[in-house]
Amino acid sequence: MLIRRLAIIGLGLIGGSLAKAARMANVVETIVGFDADRMQIQRALQDRVIDVSADSAADAARGADVVLIAVPVLATANALHAAKPGIGVDSIITDVGSTKQSVLAAAQEVFGTVLPKFVAAHPIAGTEKSGVANALPDLFRGHRVILTPHAQQDVAAQTLIAKLWEAVGARVVTMEPARHDAIFAATSHLPHLLAFAFVDMLSRLEGADVDIFPNAGGGFRDFTRIASSSPRMWHDIVRANSTQIAALLQRQIDELQRLHQLIERGEWQQLGEVFEHARAVRERHLARIE
Amino acid sequence: MLIRRLAIIGLGLIGGSLAKAARMANVVETIVGFDADRMQIQRALQDRVIDVSADSAADAARGADVVLIAVPVLATANALHAAKPGIGVDSIITDVGSTKQSVLAAAQEVFGTVLPKFVAAHPIAGTEKSGVANALPDLFRGHRVILTPHAQQDVAAQTLIAKLWEAVGARVVTMEPARHDAIFAATSHLPHLLAFAFVDMLSRLEGADVDIFPNAGGGFRDFTRIASSSPRMWHDIVRANSTQIAALLQRQIDELQRLHQLIERGEWQQLGEVFEHARAVRERHLARIE
Repeated sequence: MLIRRLAIIGLGLIGGSLAKAARMANVVETIVGFDADRMQIQRALQDRVIDVSADSAADAARGADVVLIAVPVLATANALHAAKPGIGVDSIITDVGSTKQSVLAAAQEVFGTVLPKFVAAHPIAGTEKSGVANALPDLFRGHRVILTPHAQQDVAAQTLIAKLWEAVGARVVTMEPARHDAIFAATSHLPHLLAFAFVDMLSRLEGADVDIFPNAGGGFRDFTRIASSSPRMWHDIVRANSTQIAALLQRQIDELQRLHQLIERGEWQQLGEVFEHARAVRERHLARIE
Repeated sequence: MLIRRLAIIGLGLIGGSLAKAARMANVVETIVGFDADRMQIQRALQDRVIDVSADSAADAARGADVVLIAVPVLATANALHAAKPGIGVDSIITDVGSTKQSVLAAAQEVFGTVLPKFVAAHPIAGTEKSGVANALPDLFRGHRVILTPHAQQDVAAQTLIAKLWEAVGARVVTMEPARHDAIFAATSHLPHLLAFAFVDMLSRLEGADVDIFPNAGGGFRDFTRIASSSPRMWHDIVRANSTQIAALLQRQIDELQRLHQLIERGEWQQLGEVFEHARAVRERHLARIE
Protein backbone atom coordinates (compact mmCIF):
# COMPACT_ATOMS: atom_id res chain seq x y z
CA MET A 1 0.00 0.00 0.00
CA LEU A 2 1.43 3.38 -1.02
CA ILE A 3 -0.04 5.25 1.96
CA ARG A 4 -1.08 3.76 5.29
CA ARG A 5 -3.00 6.69 6.68
CA LEU A 6 -3.98 9.71 4.54
CA ALA A 7 -5.28 12.80 6.33
CA ILE A 8 -7.34 15.15 4.21
CA ILE A 9 -7.85 18.61 5.67
CA GLY A 10 -10.52 20.33 3.61
CA LEU A 11 -13.29 18.07 2.28
CA GLY A 12 -14.30 20.00 -0.83
CA LEU A 13 -14.48 19.04 -4.49
CA ILE A 14 -10.75 18.38 -4.79
CA GLY A 15 -10.10 16.78 -1.38
CA GLY A 16 -13.20 14.63 -1.76
CA SER A 17 -12.38 13.61 -5.33
CA LEU A 18 -8.83 12.63 -4.39
CA ALA A 19 -10.16 10.55 -1.48
CA LYS A 20 -12.58 8.71 -3.78
CA ALA A 21 -9.92 8.25 -6.46
CA ALA A 22 -7.23 7.02 -4.04
CA ARG A 23 -9.65 4.48 -2.56
CA MET A 24 -10.63 3.19 -6.00
CA ALA A 25 -6.97 2.94 -6.96
CA ASN A 26 -6.36 0.99 -3.77
CA VAL A 27 -3.32 3.03 -2.78
CA VAL A 28 -4.38 4.04 0.71
CA GLU A 29 -5.41 1.99 3.77
CA THR A 30 -7.27 4.54 5.86
CA ILE A 31 -8.53 8.02 4.99
CA VAL A 32 -9.16 10.39 7.87
CA GLY A 33 -10.88 13.69 7.11
CA PHE A 34 -11.41 17.06 8.70
CA ASP A 35 -13.24 20.16 7.52
CA ALA A 36 -14.10 23.37 9.34
CA ASP A 37 -17.65 22.82 8.04
CA ARG A 38 -19.32 19.95 9.98
CA MET A 39 -21.76 19.44 7.08
CA GLN A 40 -18.92 18.52 4.72
CA ILE A 41 -17.60 15.98 7.27
CA GLN A 42 -21.07 14.44 7.70
CA ARG A 43 -21.51 14.18 3.95
CA ALA A 44 -18.02 12.70 3.50
CA LEU A 45 -18.73 10.01 6.10
CA GLN A 46 -22.18 9.30 4.69
CA ASP A 47 -20.80 8.91 1.13
CA ARG A 48 -17.87 6.83 2.53
CA VAL A 49 -15.45 9.33 1.02
CA ILE A 50 -13.50 9.10 4.29
CA ASP A 51 -13.21 6.22 6.76
CA VAL A 52 -12.85 8.30 9.89
CA SER A 53 -13.56 11.90 10.79
CA ALA A 54 -11.39 13.97 13.08
CA ASP A 55 -12.38 16.72 15.49
CA SER A 56 -9.59 19.04 14.41
CA ALA A 57 -6.90 19.40 11.80
CA ALA A 58 -4.30 18.29 14.37
CA ASP A 59 -6.35 15.15 15.21
CA ALA A 60 -6.58 14.35 11.50
CA ALA A 61 -2.83 14.78 11.02
CA ARG A 62 -1.86 12.66 14.03
CA GLY A 63 -0.43 9.35 12.90
CA ALA A 64 -0.94 10.13 9.18
CA ASP A 65 1.96 9.41 6.85
CA VAL A 66 0.53 11.90 4.32
CA VAL A 67 -1.31 15.10 5.27
CA LEU A 68 -3.14 16.69 2.32
CA ILE A 69 -4.22 20.31 2.68
CA ALA A 70 -7.16 20.96 0.31
CA VAL A 71 -8.53 24.35 1.36
CA PRO A 72 -8.90 27.72 -0.42
CA VAL A 73 -5.31 28.93 -0.92
CA LEU A 74 -5.44 31.77 1.61
CA ALA A 75 -6.60 29.31 4.28
CA THR A 76 -3.42 27.24 3.79
CA ALA A 77 -1.42 28.95 6.56
CA ASN A 78 -4.26 28.54 9.06
CA ALA A 79 -4.80 24.90 8.09
CA LEU A 80 -1.08 24.14 8.41
CA HIS A 81 -0.94 25.97 11.73
CA ALA A 82 -3.95 24.01 13.01
CA ALA A 83 -2.56 20.68 11.79
CA LYS A 84 1.00 21.32 13.03
CA PRO A 85 0.62 19.85 16.56
CA GLY A 86 -0.44 16.53 15.00
CA ILE A 87 2.10 16.37 12.17
CA GLY A 88 4.79 13.74 12.81
CA VAL A 89 8.45 14.31 11.99
CA ASP A 90 8.26 11.79 9.11
CA SER A 91 4.89 12.95 7.73
CA ILE A 92 4.70 14.18 4.17
CA ILE A 93 2.63 17.34 3.79
CA THR A 94 1.16 18.25 0.44
CA ASP A 95 -1.50 20.57 -1.01
CA VAL A 96 -3.65 21.14 -4.10
CA GLY A 97 -3.67 24.94 -4.30
CA SER A 98 -3.95 26.89 -7.56
CA THR A 99 -1.17 29.32 -6.57
CA LYS A 100 2.18 27.92 -5.51
CA GLN A 101 4.32 30.83 -4.33
CA SER A 102 1.70 31.80 -1.75
CA VAL A 103 1.43 28.21 -0.51
CA LEU A 104 5.20 27.88 -0.14
CA ALA A 105 5.23 31.23 1.70
CA ALA A 106 2.48 29.91 4.02
CA ALA A 107 4.54 26.79 4.76
CA GLN A 108 7.58 28.96 5.49
CA GLU A 109 5.50 31.17 7.80
CA VAL A 110 4.10 28.24 9.80
CA PHE A 111 7.19 26.03 10.02
CA GLY A 112 9.88 28.74 9.99
CA THR A 113 11.22 27.08 6.86
CA VAL A 114 9.67 25.09 4.03
CA LEU A 115 9.95 21.54 5.40
CA PRO A 116 11.81 19.13 3.08
CA LYS A 117 8.76 16.84 3.15
CA PHE A 118 6.37 19.59 2.06
CA VAL A 119 5.37 18.83 -1.55
CA ALA A 120 3.51 21.66 -3.32
CA ALA A 121 1.10 20.30 -5.94
CA HIS A 122 -1.63 21.63 -8.24
CA PRO A 123 -3.98 19.26 -10.06
CA ILE A 124 -5.23 20.90 -13.31
CA ALA A 125 -8.73 19.56 -12.90
CA GLY A 126 -11.96 20.66 -11.38
CA THR A 127 -15.49 21.64 -12.21
CA GLU A 128 -17.44 24.79 -11.44
CA LYS A 129 -19.17 22.82 -8.65
CA SER A 130 -18.00 22.92 -5.05
CA GLY A 131 -18.21 20.68 -2.00
CA VAL A 132 -17.63 17.01 -1.24
CA ALA A 133 -21.11 16.16 -2.57
CA ASN A 134 -19.80 16.91 -6.08
CA ALA A 135 -16.60 14.88 -5.69
CA LEU A 136 -15.79 12.59 -8.62
CA PRO A 137 -13.42 9.59 -8.44
CA ASP A 138 -12.22 10.13 -12.02
CA LEU A 139 -11.78 13.91 -11.79
CA PHE A 140 -8.00 13.69 -12.29
CA ARG A 141 -7.86 10.93 -14.91
CA GLY A 142 -5.96 12.14 -17.97
CA HIS A 143 -5.18 15.51 -16.37
CA ARG A 144 -1.89 17.03 -15.34
CA VAL A 145 -0.70 17.59 -11.79
CA ILE A 146 1.99 20.24 -11.44
CA LEU A 147 4.58 19.78 -8.69
CA THR A 148 6.64 22.86 -7.85
CA PRO A 149 9.66 21.56 -5.89
CA HIS A 150 11.40 24.02 -3.57
CA ALA A 151 15.05 24.42 -2.59
CA GLN A 152 14.87 22.02 0.39
CA GLN A 153 12.71 19.42 -1.39
CA ASP A 154 12.99 15.84 -0.11
CA VAL A 155 13.04 13.73 -3.27
CA ALA A 156 11.46 10.64 -1.70
CA ALA A 157 8.50 12.71 -0.49
CA GLN A 158 8.08 14.23 -3.95
CA THR A 159 8.22 10.77 -5.52
CA LEU A 160 5.53 9.42 -3.22
CA ILE A 161 3.18 12.29 -3.99
CA ALA A 162 3.86 11.84 -7.71
CA LYS A 163 2.96 8.14 -7.34
CA LEU A 164 -0.27 9.02 -5.54
CA TRP A 165 -1.35 11.27 -8.44
CA GLU A 166 -0.24 8.79 -11.08
CA ALA A 167 -2.24 6.09 -9.29
CA VAL A 168 -5.42 8.16 -9.79
CA GLY A 169 -4.72 8.57 -13.49
CA ALA A 170 -2.94 11.93 -13.56
CA ARG A 171 0.25 12.86 -15.39
CA VAL A 172 2.79 14.56 -13.14
CA VAL A 173 5.03 17.38 -14.35
CA THR A 174 7.29 19.73 -12.42
CA MET A 175 7.68 23.49 -12.75
CA GLU A 176 9.25 26.47 -11.00
CA PRO A 177 6.74 27.97 -8.52
CA ALA A 178 6.99 31.47 -10.05
CA ARG A 179 6.54 30.20 -13.60
CA HIS A 180 3.59 28.10 -12.46
CA ASP A 181 1.91 31.20 -11.05
CA ALA A 182 2.58 33.22 -14.22
CA ILE A 183 1.20 30.49 -16.50
CA PHE A 184 -1.96 29.84 -14.53
CA ALA A 185 -2.62 33.54 -14.07
CA ALA A 186 -2.94 33.59 -17.87
CA THR A 187 -4.77 30.34 -18.62
CA SER A 188 -6.96 30.03 -15.53
CA HIS A 189 -7.00 32.92 -13.04
CA LEU A 190 -7.61 35.73 -15.53
CA PRO A 191 -10.38 33.91 -17.46
CA HIS A 192 -12.21 33.24 -14.18
CA LEU A 193 -11.99 36.94 -13.32
CA LEU A 194 -13.18 37.88 -16.83
CA ALA A 195 -16.13 35.49 -16.66
CA PHE A 196 -17.26 36.81 -13.25
CA ALA A 197 -16.83 40.39 -14.55
CA PHE A 198 -18.84 39.72 -17.70
CA VAL A 199 -21.82 38.24 -15.83
CA ASP A 200 -21.63 41.06 -13.28
CA MET A 201 -21.64 43.69 -16.05
CA LEU A 202 -24.60 42.05 -17.82
CA SER A 203 -26.56 41.84 -14.58
CA ARG A 204 -26.54 45.65 -14.38
CA LEU A 205 -28.05 46.16 -17.85
CA GLU A 206 -31.65 47.25 -18.17
CA GLY A 207 -33.76 44.16 -18.78
CA ALA A 208 -31.07 41.79 -17.50
CA ASP A 209 -33.53 39.52 -15.70
CA VAL A 210 -36.43 40.20 -18.07
CA ASP A 211 -35.11 39.37 -21.51
CA ILE A 212 -31.30 39.37 -21.53
CA PHE A 213 -30.30 36.34 -19.41
CA PRO A 214 -33.47 34.47 -20.46
CA ASN A 215 -32.26 34.69 -24.09
CA ALA A 216 -28.75 33.42 -23.43
CA GLY A 217 -27.68 30.42 -25.49
CA GLY A 218 -24.97 27.81 -25.64
CA GLY A 219 -22.14 30.26 -26.33
CA PHE A 220 -23.02 32.22 -23.21
CA ARG A 221 -23.36 29.03 -21.16
CA ASP A 222 -19.86 27.78 -21.96
CA PHE A 223 -18.21 31.21 -21.84
CA THR A 224 -19.59 31.81 -18.35
CA ARG A 225 -19.40 28.28 -16.92
CA ILE A 226 -16.43 29.24 -14.76
CA ALA A 227 -18.44 32.17 -13.31
CA SER A 228 -20.33 29.50 -11.36
CA SER A 229 -17.10 28.53 -9.56
CA SER A 230 -16.65 29.02 -5.82
CA PRO A 231 -16.38 32.79 -5.13
CA ARG A 232 -14.38 32.11 -1.95
CA MET A 233 -11.85 29.93 -3.79
CA TRP A 234 -11.39 32.53 -6.54
CA HIS A 235 -11.24 35.46 -4.17
CA ASP A 236 -8.32 33.68 -2.51
CA ILE A 237 -6.59 32.86 -5.80
CA VAL A 238 -6.82 36.42 -7.13
CA ARG A 239 -5.54 37.78 -3.85
CA ALA A 240 -2.72 35.22 -3.62
CA ASN A 241 -1.56 35.85 -7.20
CA SER A 242 -2.66 39.48 -7.48
CA THR A 243 0.49 40.95 -9.04
CA GLN A 244 0.46 38.53 -11.97
CA ILE A 245 -3.29 38.76 -12.42
CA ALA A 246 -3.42 42.58 -12.26
CA ALA A 247 -0.70 42.82 -14.92
CA LEU A 248 -2.56 40.46 -17.26
CA LEU A 249 -5.87 42.16 -16.56
CA GLN A 250 -4.27 45.44 -17.64
CA ARG A 251 -3.12 43.80 -20.87
CA GLN A 252 -6.65 42.53 -21.46
CA ILE A 253 -8.07 46.04 -20.86
CA ASP A 254 -5.52 47.42 -23.36
CA GLU A 255 -6.53 44.75 -25.87
CA LEU A 256 -10.23 45.57 -25.49
CA GLN A 257 -9.53 49.30 -25.84
CA ARG A 258 -7.67 48.54 -29.05
CA LEU A 259 -10.61 46.51 -30.40
CA HIS A 260 -13.02 49.25 -29.31
CA GLN A 261 -10.97 51.72 -31.35
CA LEU A 262 -11.02 49.42 -34.38
CA ILE A 263 -14.82 49.32 -34.16
CA GLU A 264 -15.15 53.09 -33.62
CA ARG A 265 -12.87 53.77 -36.60
CA GLY A 266 -14.51 51.12 -38.77
CA GLU A 267 -11.22 49.28 -39.23
CA TRP A 268 -13.05 46.06 -40.01
CA GLN A 269 -10.26 44.26 -41.78
CA GLN A 270 -7.94 44.57 -38.78
CA LEU A 271 -10.75 43.38 -36.52
CA GLY A 272 -11.32 40.37 -38.76
CA GLU A 273 -7.60 39.61 -38.65
CA VAL A 274 -7.68 39.55 -34.84
CA PHE A 275 -10.52 37.01 -35.00
CA GLU A 276 -8.67 34.93 -37.62
CA HIS A 277 -5.49 34.94 -35.57
CA ALA A 278 -7.24 34.03 -32.30
CA ARG A 279 -9.10 31.19 -33.92
CA ALA A 280 -5.96 29.80 -35.56
CA VAL A 281 -4.01 29.94 -32.29
CA ARG A 282 -6.77 28.21 -30.34
CA GLU A 283 -7.21 25.50 -32.97
CA ARG A 284 -3.46 24.89 -33.06
CA HIS A 285 -3.31 24.22 -29.33
CA LEU A 286 -6.70 22.59 -28.86
CA ALA A 287 -5.56 19.00 -29.22
CA ARG A 288 -3.23 19.42 -26.24
CA ILE A 289 -5.83 20.87 -23.88
CA GLU A 290 -6.97 18.23 -21.42
CA MET B 1 -46.14 18.79 -47.20
CA LEU B 2 -45.41 22.18 -45.61
CA ILE B 3 -42.96 23.26 -48.34
CA ARG B 4 -42.82 21.96 -51.90
CA ARG B 5 -39.50 23.41 -52.93
CA LEU B 6 -37.06 24.92 -50.44
CA ALA B 7 -34.13 26.90 -51.82
CA ILE B 8 -31.18 27.28 -49.48
CA ILE B 9 -28.70 29.97 -50.43
CA GLY B 10 -25.62 29.47 -48.29
CA LEU B 11 -24.72 25.87 -47.45
CA GLY B 12 -22.94 26.35 -44.15
CA LEU B 13 -23.50 24.94 -40.69
CA ILE B 14 -26.93 26.53 -40.28
CA GLY B 15 -28.24 26.15 -43.83
CA GLY B 16 -26.98 22.57 -43.96
CA SER B 17 -28.40 21.68 -40.56
CA LEU B 18 -31.82 23.10 -41.44
CA ALA B 19 -31.80 21.10 -44.69
CA LYS B 20 -31.02 17.88 -42.81
CA ALA B 21 -33.57 18.65 -40.11
CA ALA B 22 -36.36 19.58 -42.54
CA ARG B 23 -35.79 16.39 -44.48
CA MET B 24 -35.91 14.26 -41.33
CA ALA B 25 -39.07 16.06 -40.21
CA ASN B 26 -40.56 15.31 -43.64
CA VAL B 27 -41.82 18.86 -44.17
CA VAL B 28 -40.20 19.57 -47.53
CA GLU B 29 -40.42 17.81 -50.88
CA THR B 30 -37.34 19.08 -52.66
CA ILE B 31 -34.32 21.00 -51.36
CA VAL B 32 -32.29 22.96 -53.88
CA GLY B 33 -29.02 24.49 -52.74
CA PHE B 34 -26.55 27.12 -53.82
CA ASP B 35 -23.33 28.36 -52.29
CA ALA B 36 -20.68 30.73 -53.66
CA ASP B 37 -18.16 28.04 -52.64
CA ARG B 38 -18.38 25.05 -55.06
CA MET B 39 -16.82 22.79 -52.40
CA GLN B 40 -19.78 23.35 -50.08
CA ILE B 41 -22.20 22.45 -52.89
CA GLN B 42 -20.27 19.28 -53.71
CA ARG B 43 -20.22 18.25 -50.08
CA ALA B 44 -23.95 19.03 -49.68
CA LEU B 45 -24.79 16.85 -52.70
CA GLN B 46 -22.48 14.08 -51.58
CA ASP B 47 -23.99 14.01 -48.05
CA ARG B 48 -27.51 14.25 -49.58
CA VAL B 49 -28.11 17.44 -47.61
CA ILE B 50 -29.68 18.87 -50.77
CA ASP B 51 -31.49 17.11 -53.62
CA VAL B 52 -30.44 19.47 -56.38
CA SER B 53 -27.72 22.05 -56.79
CA ALA B 54 -28.18 25.32 -58.63
CA ASP B 55 -25.66 27.31 -60.63
CA SER B 56 -26.65 30.62 -59.11
CA ALA B 57 -28.73 32.09 -56.33
CA ALA B 58 -31.37 33.08 -58.91
CA ASP B 59 -31.50 29.53 -60.28
CA ALA B 60 -31.93 28.18 -56.77
CA ALA B 61 -34.74 30.63 -56.01
CA ARG B 62 -36.62 29.95 -59.25
CA GLY B 63 -39.78 27.97 -58.52
CA ALA B 64 -39.09 27.73 -54.80
CA ASP B 65 -41.95 28.48 -52.44
CA VAL B 66 -39.47 29.27 -49.66
CA VAL B 67 -36.07 30.90 -50.21
CA LEU B 68 -33.79 30.67 -47.18
CA ILE B 69 -30.77 32.98 -47.03
CA ALA B 70 -28.12 31.44 -44.76
CA VAL B 71 -24.99 33.52 -45.34
CA PRO B 72 -22.83 35.74 -43.11
CA VAL B 73 -25.06 38.73 -42.26
CA LEU B 74 -23.18 41.30 -44.34
CA ALA B 75 -23.56 39.07 -47.40
CA THR B 76 -27.36 39.18 -47.07
CA ALA B 77 -27.88 42.12 -49.44
CA ASN B 78 -25.68 40.52 -52.12
CA ALA B 79 -27.39 37.14 -51.72
CA LEU B 80 -30.86 38.75 -51.98
CA HIS B 81 -29.75 40.78 -54.96
CA ALA B 82 -28.38 37.67 -56.69
CA ALA B 83 -31.51 35.63 -55.88
CA LYS B 84 -33.97 38.38 -56.85
CA PRO B 85 -34.36 37.53 -60.56
CA GLY B 86 -35.51 34.02 -59.56
CA ILE B 87 -37.78 34.94 -56.67
CA GLY B 88 -41.47 34.52 -57.53
CA VAL B 89 -44.15 36.95 -56.44
CA ASP B 90 -45.59 34.41 -53.99
CA SER B 91 -42.25 33.17 -52.64
CA ILE B 92 -41.53 33.49 -48.96
CA ILE B 93 -38.03 34.75 -48.22
CA THR B 94 -36.44 34.13 -44.85
CA ASP B 95 -33.02 34.22 -43.22
CA VAL B 96 -31.08 32.96 -40.19
CA GLY B 97 -28.87 35.97 -39.42
CA SER B 98 -27.66 36.88 -35.93
CA THR B 99 -28.48 40.58 -36.42
CA LYS B 100 -31.96 41.56 -37.50
CA GLN B 101 -31.96 45.33 -38.13
CA SER B 102 -29.13 44.96 -40.65
CA VAL B 103 -30.94 42.11 -42.42
CA LEU B 104 -34.19 44.10 -42.66
CA ALA B 105 -32.18 47.06 -43.97
CA ALA B 106 -30.62 44.77 -46.59
CA ALA B 107 -34.07 43.58 -47.69
CA GLN B 108 -35.23 47.19 -47.92
CA GLU B 109 -32.16 48.08 -49.98
CA VAL B 110 -32.64 45.24 -52.46
CA PHE B 111 -36.42 45.32 -52.87
CA GLY B 112 -37.01 49.03 -52.28
CA THR B 113 -39.22 48.01 -49.36
CA VAL B 114 -39.24 45.10 -46.95
CA LEU B 115 -41.47 42.63 -48.80
CA PRO B 116 -44.46 41.42 -46.78
CA LYS B 117 -43.32 37.84 -47.34
CA PHE B 118 -39.84 38.49 -45.99
CA VAL B 119 -39.63 36.75 -42.60
CA ALA B 120 -36.58 37.66 -40.53
CA ALA B 121 -35.53 34.79 -38.25
CA HIS B 122 -32.63 33.92 -35.94
CA PRO B 123 -32.18 30.39 -34.60
CA ILE B 124 -30.35 30.48 -31.24
CA ALA B 125 -28.27 27.44 -31.99
CA GLY B 126 -24.93 26.66 -33.50
CA THR B 127 -21.53 25.28 -32.70
CA GLU B 128 -18.09 26.78 -33.07
CA LYS B 129 -17.69 24.63 -36.21
CA SER B 130 -18.42 25.93 -39.71
CA GLY B 131 -19.40 24.46 -43.05
CA VAL B 132 -21.96 21.99 -44.33
CA ALA B 133 -19.70 19.08 -43.32
CA ASN B 134 -20.47 19.91 -39.69
CA ALA B 135 -24.25 20.21 -40.22
CA LEU B 136 -26.37 18.41 -37.61
CA PRO B 137 -30.03 17.42 -38.11
CA ASP B 138 -30.86 18.00 -34.43
CA LEU B 139 -29.02 21.32 -34.08
CA PHE B 140 -32.24 23.24 -33.43
CA ARG B 141 -34.07 20.73 -31.24
CA GLY B 142 -35.05 22.36 -27.95
CA HIS B 143 -33.66 25.74 -28.99
CA ARG B 144 -35.42 29.02 -29.61
CA VAL B 145 -35.88 30.69 -32.96
CA ILE B 146 -36.52 34.42 -32.78
CA LEU B 147 -38.77 35.96 -35.44
CA THR B 148 -38.62 39.75 -35.70
CA PRO B 149 -41.74 40.77 -37.67
CA HIS B 150 -41.62 44.10 -39.50
CA ALA B 151 -44.31 46.68 -40.21
CA GLN B 152 -45.40 45.09 -43.53
CA GLN B 153 -45.25 41.51 -42.28
CA ASP B 154 -47.50 39.00 -44.05
CA VAL B 155 -48.91 36.87 -41.25
CA ALA B 156 -49.37 33.70 -43.33
CA ALA B 157 -45.69 33.82 -44.39
CA GLN B 158 -44.62 34.28 -40.78
CA THR B 159 -46.82 31.36 -39.71
CA LEU B 160 -45.33 29.06 -42.33
CA ILE B 161 -41.76 29.87 -41.26
CA ALA B 162 -42.76 29.36 -37.62
CA LYS B 163 -44.16 25.93 -38.58
CA LEU B 164 -40.93 25.03 -40.38
CA TRP B 165 -38.87 25.76 -37.26
CA GLU B 166 -41.33 24.03 -34.96
CA ALA B 167 -41.20 20.98 -37.23
CA VAL B 168 -37.44 20.70 -36.59
CA GLY B 169 -37.94 20.88 -32.84
CA ALA B 170 -37.44 24.59 -32.18
CA ARG B 171 -39.57 26.90 -30.06
CA VAL B 172 -40.54 30.09 -31.89
CA VAL B 173 -40.79 33.46 -30.17
CA THR B 174 -41.16 36.94 -31.61
CA MET B 175 -39.33 40.11 -30.73
CA GLU B 176 -38.79 43.70 -31.94
CA PRO B 177 -35.76 43.80 -34.29
CA ALA B 178 -34.01 46.52 -32.25
CA ARG B 179 -34.55 44.72 -28.96
CA HIS B 180 -33.31 41.49 -30.56
CA ASP B 181 -30.08 43.21 -31.57
CA ALA B 182 -29.61 44.73 -28.10
CA ILE B 183 -30.19 41.42 -26.32
CA PHE B 184 -27.89 39.36 -28.53
CA ALA B 185 -25.18 42.01 -28.46
CA ALA B 186 -25.08 41.29 -24.71
CA THR B 187 -25.51 37.52 -24.55
CA SER B 188 -23.77 36.46 -27.76
CA HIS B 189 -21.94 39.11 -29.79
CA LEU B 190 -19.91 40.65 -26.95
CA PRO B 191 -18.81 37.29 -25.45
CA HIS B 192 -17.57 36.19 -28.87
CA LEU B 193 -15.55 39.41 -29.17
CA LEU B 194 -14.21 38.93 -25.62
CA ALA B 195 -13.19 35.34 -26.28
CA PHE B 196 -11.35 36.25 -29.50
CA ALA B 197 -9.68 39.17 -27.67
CA PHE B 198 -8.59 37.00 -24.76
CA VAL B 199 -6.93 34.37 -26.96
CA ASP B 200 -5.32 37.11 -29.06
CA MET B 201 -3.92 38.79 -25.92
CA LEU B 202 -2.55 35.50 -24.55
CA SER B 203 -0.93 34.68 -27.87
CA ARG B 204 1.28 37.78 -27.50
CA LEU B 205 2.64 36.79 -24.08
CA GLU B 206 6.17 35.52 -23.78
CA GLY B 207 6.08 31.72 -23.71
CA ALA B 208 2.57 31.57 -25.20
CA ASP B 209 3.36 28.60 -27.43
CA VAL B 210 5.98 27.10 -25.12
CA ASP B 211 4.26 26.69 -21.79
CA ILE B 212 1.15 28.92 -21.60
CA PHE B 213 -1.31 27.38 -24.10
CA PRO B 214 0.14 23.88 -23.49
CA ASN B 215 -0.89 24.24 -19.81
CA ALA B 216 -4.45 25.37 -20.50
CA GLY B 217 -7.15 23.28 -18.85
CA GLY B 218 -10.88 22.73 -18.96
CA GLY B 219 -11.80 26.23 -17.79
CA PHE B 220 -9.81 27.75 -20.63
CA ARG B 221 -11.28 25.30 -23.14
CA ASP B 222 -14.88 26.20 -22.37
CA PHE B 223 -14.23 29.93 -21.89
CA THR B 224 -12.59 30.14 -25.33
CA ARG B 225 -14.73 27.63 -27.25
CA ILE B 226 -16.49 30.45 -29.10
CA ALA B 227 -13.09 31.83 -30.19
CA SER B 228 -13.00 28.88 -32.61
CA SER B 229 -16.09 30.26 -34.37
CA SER B 230 -16.00 31.47 -37.96
CA PRO B 231 -14.01 34.75 -38.08
CA ARG B 232 -15.90 35.84 -41.20
CA MET B 233 -19.29 35.29 -39.59
CA TRP B 234 -18.28 37.22 -36.46
CA HIS B 235 -16.59 40.01 -38.37
CA ASP B 236 -19.93 40.52 -40.12
CA ILE B 237 -21.97 40.40 -36.92
CA VAL B 238 -19.76 42.90 -35.09
CA ARG B 239 -19.87 45.22 -38.05
CA ALA B 240 -23.64 44.86 -38.54
CA ASN B 241 -24.38 45.49 -34.85
CA SER B 242 -21.39 47.72 -34.09
CA THR B 243 -23.17 50.48 -32.17
CA GLN B 244 -24.68 48.11 -29.63
CA ILE B 245 -21.52 46.04 -29.35
CA ALA B 246 -19.21 49.05 -28.95
CA ALA B 247 -21.40 50.42 -26.15
CA LEU B 248 -21.38 47.12 -24.29
CA LEU B 249 -17.66 46.67 -24.89
CA GLN B 250 -17.10 50.05 -23.25
CA ARG B 251 -19.15 48.91 -20.26
CA GLN B 252 -17.04 45.77 -20.03
CA ILE B 253 -13.83 47.84 -20.17
CA ASP B 254 -15.23 50.05 -17.37
CA GLU B 255 -16.07 46.95 -15.34
CA LEU B 256 -12.57 45.52 -15.78
CA GLN B 257 -11.00 48.86 -14.83
CA ARG B 258 -13.11 48.86 -11.68
CA LEU B 259 -11.95 45.33 -10.79
CA HIS B 260 -8.35 46.28 -11.57
CA GLN B 261 -8.67 49.14 -9.09
CA LEU B 262 -10.12 46.81 -6.45
CA ILE B 263 -7.08 44.56 -6.86
CA GLU B 264 -4.60 47.47 -6.83
CA ARG B 265 -6.21 48.88 -3.69
CA GLY B 266 -6.52 45.50 -2.02
CA GLU B 267 -10.28 45.85 -1.68
CA TRP B 268 -10.71 42.11 -1.49
CA GLN B 269 -14.11 42.01 0.13
CA GLN B 270 -15.67 44.06 -2.67
CA LEU B 271 -13.96 41.82 -5.22
CA GLY B 272 -15.34 38.74 -3.49
CA GLU B 273 -18.79 40.32 -3.55
CA VAL B 274 -18.57 40.79 -7.33
CA PHE B 275 -17.74 37.08 -7.68
CA GLU B 276 -20.58 36.10 -5.30
CA HIS B 277 -23.06 38.26 -7.18
CA ALA B 278 -22.02 37.00 -10.62
CA ARG B 279 -22.23 33.40 -9.53
CA ALA B 280 -25.66 33.89 -7.97
CA VAL B 281 -27.01 35.60 -11.08
CA ARG B 282 -25.70 32.89 -13.41
CA GLU B 283 -27.02 30.08 -11.22
CA ARG B 284 -30.43 31.76 -11.04
CA HIS B 285 -30.74 31.87 -14.83
CA LEU B 286 -28.91 28.67 -15.70
CA ALA B 287 -31.95 26.40 -15.81
CA ARG B 288 -33.45 28.52 -18.59
CA ILE B 289 -30.38 28.52 -20.83
CA GLU B 290 -30.87 26.11 -23.71
